[in-house]
Amino acid sequence: MRVTTESLSDTATLTSYLLDDAPTTHAVDPTMPPRPAVLVLPGGAYLEIAEREAEPVATAYLAEGFNAFVLRYAVGADVPFEASLADATAALLRIRSGAEEFGINPHRIACAGFSAGGHLALALGTIAEEAPDALVLGYPVTMAQMGRPLGQRIPDLVGAITPDTPPIFVFATCGDPMVPVRNTLDLIAELDSHLVPFESHVYLLGGHGLSLARPASSGGQAHNVEPGAAEWFADSVRFLHTVFVDVELAGSQPGYDTLLLRRRLGVHMPLRNLVADERAVHVMAAAAPALTLAVQDGELSLLVSPAQVAQQSPDLIDRETLDKLQVSLDELN
Amino acid sequence: MRVTTESLSDTATLTSYLLDDAPTTHAVDPTMPPRPAVLVLPGGAYLEIAEREAEPVATAYLAEGFNAFVLRYAVGADVPFEASLADATAALLRIRSGAEEFGINPHRIACAGFSAGGHLALALGTIAEEAPDALVLGYPVTMAQMGRPLGQRIPDLVGAITPDTPPIFVFATCGDPMVPVRNTLDLIAELDSHLVPFESHVYLLGGHGLSLARPASSGGQAHNVEPGAAEWFADSVRFLHTVFVDVELAGSQPGYDTLLLRRRLGVHMPLRNLVADERAVHVMAAAAPALTLAVQDGELSLLVSPAQVAQQSPDLIDRETLDKLQVSLDELN
Amino acid sequence: MRVTTESLSDTATLTSYLLDDAPTTHAVDPTMPPRPAVLVLPGGAYLEIAEREAEPVATAYLAEGFNAFVLRYAVGADVPFEASLADATAALLRIRSGAEEFGINPHRIACAGFSAGGHLALALGTIAEEAPDALVLGYPVTMAQMGRPLGQRIPDLVGAITPDTPPIFVFATCGDPMVPVRNTLDLIAELDSHLVPFESHVYLLGGHGLSLARPASSGGQAHNVEPGAAEWFADSVRFLHTVFVDVELAGSQPGYDTLLLRRRLGVHMPLRNLVADERAVHVMAAAAPALTLAVQDGELSLLVSPAQVAQQSPDLIDRETLDKLQVSLDELN
Amino acid sequence: MRVTTESLSDTATLTSYLLDDAPTTHAVDPTMPPRPAVLVLPGGAYLEIAEREAEPVATAYLAEGFNAFVLRYAVGADVPFEASLADATAALLRIRSGAEEFGINPHRIACAGFSAGGHLALALGTIAEEAPDALVLGYPVTMAQMGRPLGQRIPDLVGAITPDTPPIFVFATCGDPMVPVRNTLDLIAELDSHLVPFESHVYLLGGHGLSLARPASSGGQAHNVEPGAAEWFADSVRFLHTVFVDVELAGSQPGYDTLLLRRRLGVHMPLRNLVADERAVHVMAAAAPALTLAVQDGELSLLVSPAQVAQQSPDLIDRETLDKLQVSLDELN
Repeated sequence: MRVTTESLSDTATLTSYLLDDAPTTHAVDPTMPPRPAVLVLPGGAYLEIAEREAEPVATAYLAEGFNAFVLRYAVGADVPFEASLADATAALLRIRSGAEEFGINPHRIACAGFSAGGHLALALGTIAEEAPDALVLGYPVTMAQMGRPLGQRIPDLVGAITPDTPPIFVFATCGDPMVPVRNTLDLIAELDSHLVPFESHVYLLGGHGLSLARPASSGGQAHNVEPGAAEWFADSVRFLHTVFVDVELAGSQPGYDTLLLRRRLGVHMPLRNLVADERAVHVMAAAAPALTLAVQDGELSLLVSPAQVAQQSPDLIDRETLDKLQVSLDELN
Repeated sequence: MRVTTESLSDTATLTSYLLDDAPTTHAVDPTMPPRPAVLVLPGGAYLEIAEREAEPVATAYLAEGFNAFVLRYAVGADVPFEASLADATAALLRIRSGAEEFGINPHRIACAGFSAGGHLALALGTIAEEAPDALVLGYPVTMAQMGRPLGQRIPDLVGAITPDTPPIFVFATCGDPMVPVRNTLDLIAELDSHLVPFESHVYLLGGHGLSLARPASSGGQAHNVEPGAAEWFADSVRFLHTVFVDVELAGSQPGYDTLLLRRRLGVHMPLRNLVADERAVHVMAAAAPALTLAVQDGELSLLVSPAQVAQQSPDLIDRETLDKLQVSLDELN
Repeated sequence: MRVTTESLSDTATLTSYLLDDAPTTHAVDPTMPPRPAVLVLPGGAYLEIAEREAEPVATAYLAEGFNAFVLRYAVGADVPFEASLADATAALLRIRSGAEEFGINPHRIACAGFSAGGHLALALGTIAEEAPDALVLGYPVTMAQMGRPLGQRIPDLVGAITPDTPPIFVFATCGDPMVPVRNTLDLIAELDSHLVPFESHVYLLGGHGLSLARPASSGGQAHNVEPGAAEWFADSVRFLHTVFVDVELAGSQPGYDTLLLRRRLGVHMPLRNLVADERAVHVMAAAAPALTLAVQDGELSLLVSPAQVAQQSPDLIDRETLDKLQVSLDELN
Repeated sequence: MRVTTESLSDTATLTSYLLDDAPTTHAVDPTMPPRPAVLVLPGGAYLEIAEREAEPVATAYLAEGFNAFVLRYAVGADVPFEASLADATAALLRIRSGAEEFGINPHRIACAGFSAGGHLALALGTIAEEAPDALVLGYPVTMAQMGRPLGQRIPDLVGAITPDTPPIFVFATCGDPMVPVRNTLDLIAELDSHLVPFESHVYLLGGHGLSLARPASSGGQAHNVEPGAAEWFADSVRFLHTVFVDVELAGSQPGYDTLLLRRRLGVHMPLRNLVADERAVHVMAAAAPALTLAVQDGELSLLVSPAQVAQQSPDLIDRETLDKLQVSLDELN
């Protein structure tokens, strides 16, 4: 393994943890650098860097075969958010463009951020010029108004979610006294609205800043250990392997395709999203008048898709009509 | 274990699974009936009863020491919601008032509901006259407008959440094609607003109706098995024990010291190892002649220690002799 | 679920826990009764029946989709072992012949025994007229000489192991003060000698009589809870599904075939077992003289098979010779 | 983290992986260097170094808070065992004497060896001049006569076990085709005879050389992944923490009470909920005017509680005022 730290700017350092080039690869495409990567953004309220959310997290992902990077970005009461974002963007660009040097797959870079670092990671996934391929957020700040403790204004990111936002794994604790869980709840509601694939875990117990919630990242403090919450890490690994499709041994990973399919204009897209597209509305009115009428009459839940309606209420749309509708809608993509 | 089914009404049957009154209690208050209880409400869109969400769930909680009940409530296209709610309320009342007969703690009754059964469980927790002490909801319906598939109007329950709502454990899947995850997201946002303690898990993968998401509840269908989602059950058990405060063990757990202790010359060392030490042999012959004779006569397994012999055959060596032997042997160390 | 208790004899009762005939099957052959079964034999030193190792264990396997049976067999200071064995044999016969009535697969019956019950289960697997299809043994007694505490002579079973002994899953604790772990160690050494497939776990911590090692089976005593040891149950379920080949959903269960293949006379059988068969010796001498010479000269470890030798020392036996040897040996089966 | 490789001799290199000196300690004795250490000895039949059993294992222990070392020791057909043992002994001496430099506890050094590396680790624990404090052995060679494949004679170590042998965690697979499980079975029988504390796991499935048995150490080969066997690593971590007695956390874990407390009118209730109660508003205006003003001016996030504000912005409300506010609010309950 090689561990090196480089300056990214006056304010930021990037520490790389690169596993040896040994026969432990699991690449899908053998010509691509095999390893997925995780860029870790520790928390610290944008005032400091929380070390408990830095190297311990990086080593945990290393043990799972990811190359890892820890960014210590610009922080401080007088440091504007734009400076921190610039550092984060620079780090991601550095990692992606240096994929060959780092032995990673440039399209398999996850960003894992905690607390304020979660806000920064989410910013990369929404408003920055360069986005990670997946996000892992630990008790993240997502909303603009965090008031005085934070010492600065930071942008609301919930409103910045789009269908292009990378898939997100997020966890938090029900009674977090520092970053209220509302931050996570509003985020996942928005993800659902935009059909962004996600997985979320809100644990009953646990305070703020759990990091891995295990002794190794607890700083010797019992309140930083919470067995229930500690499950998040293994779940995040399974999540990343699923969305990266990068564990190729035997067999396949069923399931994720469904989540991707429903995001295209077609009979698997929920009506709510279809009717938001004028062209799709016209297509539907022409191809499936009974369905369209039912929608207009408020008889249907708009959370279902035409395919689901066909399954449950074939009088509204039968198999043949469904197929024709799919063809017509697909032409719009 | 006793399994009995009784009619609650013309439309409902309640099946009780009552564990034997054997020494496996974990009561906080020994004068209270010891076992917590789970009332299972299977799904089925209020049109039928989904068996995969009935007995398999009950047996899973039985294995964790809960007494379990399965309610098959009024369902059907022409059955009004009020009838289903009346059945559920009657079941809860029956269980609570029959606490002594059922060997349960009347204030430790959880209600576990799936899909439409989750809606019904949530109704018990919000709008019924009698509420459970905790709720476990699997991919629940929470919103009123479920449109045509459901075949009937059911009340919105998200708006019925108050600070008095029992604590809720809820899980769902991100891309549920039948009960959109929005049902869960809106629910937990409301729980947070009213400070109701909760734990939620939204899994990336998995369709609708997973039940336990394990082979035992899959009906032989691979799509009903999802390893990630299957974690929900163990998490729900930890949640219930936490909110019920009902696991109280007496005594302590013997640890590594025990293993170290038996390696010292003393009454905890196995006879086989003692007799290999000449000095120990002399000490034993002097201090515990009956034991020594039994060893010589081949009456004892040499794999046990004097302390164990004292426990099982006090006629060979009693407590007093044992203590003297310990002192003498310890001097040799 | 139906729970019924029947008298098997003057001394024995058999309690059946039969899951409902609901769509939770996972049969390989749909014409066979779908469920595997577990016959639970509690411990109690052949003096009594330990309830903590009875129903709690049965309910745990029920939750995994097995139909379960608990046998309370003849016990007492004056009861000869033969009486207990007769009860156990009668129970197994009752279950197997009643397969249709019980809704089970008569060739998928495991016997799970603890302590003295483990001895009894092992007896079924070795010296009885009727054998289970798999054994799960918890801190079993396996050796004859258990001395005075047991109050009776019981047969040594380690010496009764043969290649036909069913596959065995066994767990114990390192410092068990009541049934020394030597009982388990001698057993698994013998299983290995006879190539009986097995899995064993000896945990560092834990006393005797842990049962499931969880609160639900602890009788409220902390010393009966041991998180490390508690893993045994899930491991036993995976073991049973593997050896029963009875979870058929998608894909296959690789691996077990290898364990079965090496038990037939052929190039995959270890030399140690081959040379014990005179006919095989002759075949080898004729077909693979260099190999035979090496064996006679003591140059080879007899724990390896001809196939392994071919891989590592092709000068002793090459591919062609190996194939011929396989054909000749196979004829002896 | 610092990763450096040094030459120990002409034949050996030692790679050190040292975690940062960050607040993740878990020392029992704060004056001792906090971290336990693991020295990894990869396998390779004493002919080569198996990389899959090198860094992947080291990173796994790093993620658990151990500092790790990988020794690439003398190997080759013509290399005598004594040379390999000399390298291993030198490595252990180097680590122990360099405890301060390496930030480790010199009496908490485990040696983890696989296959031939397991033999070497066991040699350190039995016949070398310097012994580790614990051993973790993966499918180890323990017996002298391994015949021709190994290419050299190595000493039998089973006969070298004494009561002073360090505690041992060992795992293997039932049908290991390369290092027969007899190696492990004979070892644990000897450990039991000498009362050496141990834990052993023999898995039903799995071939040779599994390493972590996970994708990260599989070299992309499905046969190197075995979910059952993969449990060994977590069990080994629990084993090491038990025998090292080195996880000591300060303070306590806040529990469910915290979640209940914030629902009562008081300083732990979020401002959002407080201001919804008219009486509470009056109390706050009187007792904590600066806080009330900040709320009115929209300077604060209403999702936090007065107690949290006091922690982060004591200028708005100090400890004394907080206590008075709590008393006043509590009277309203």
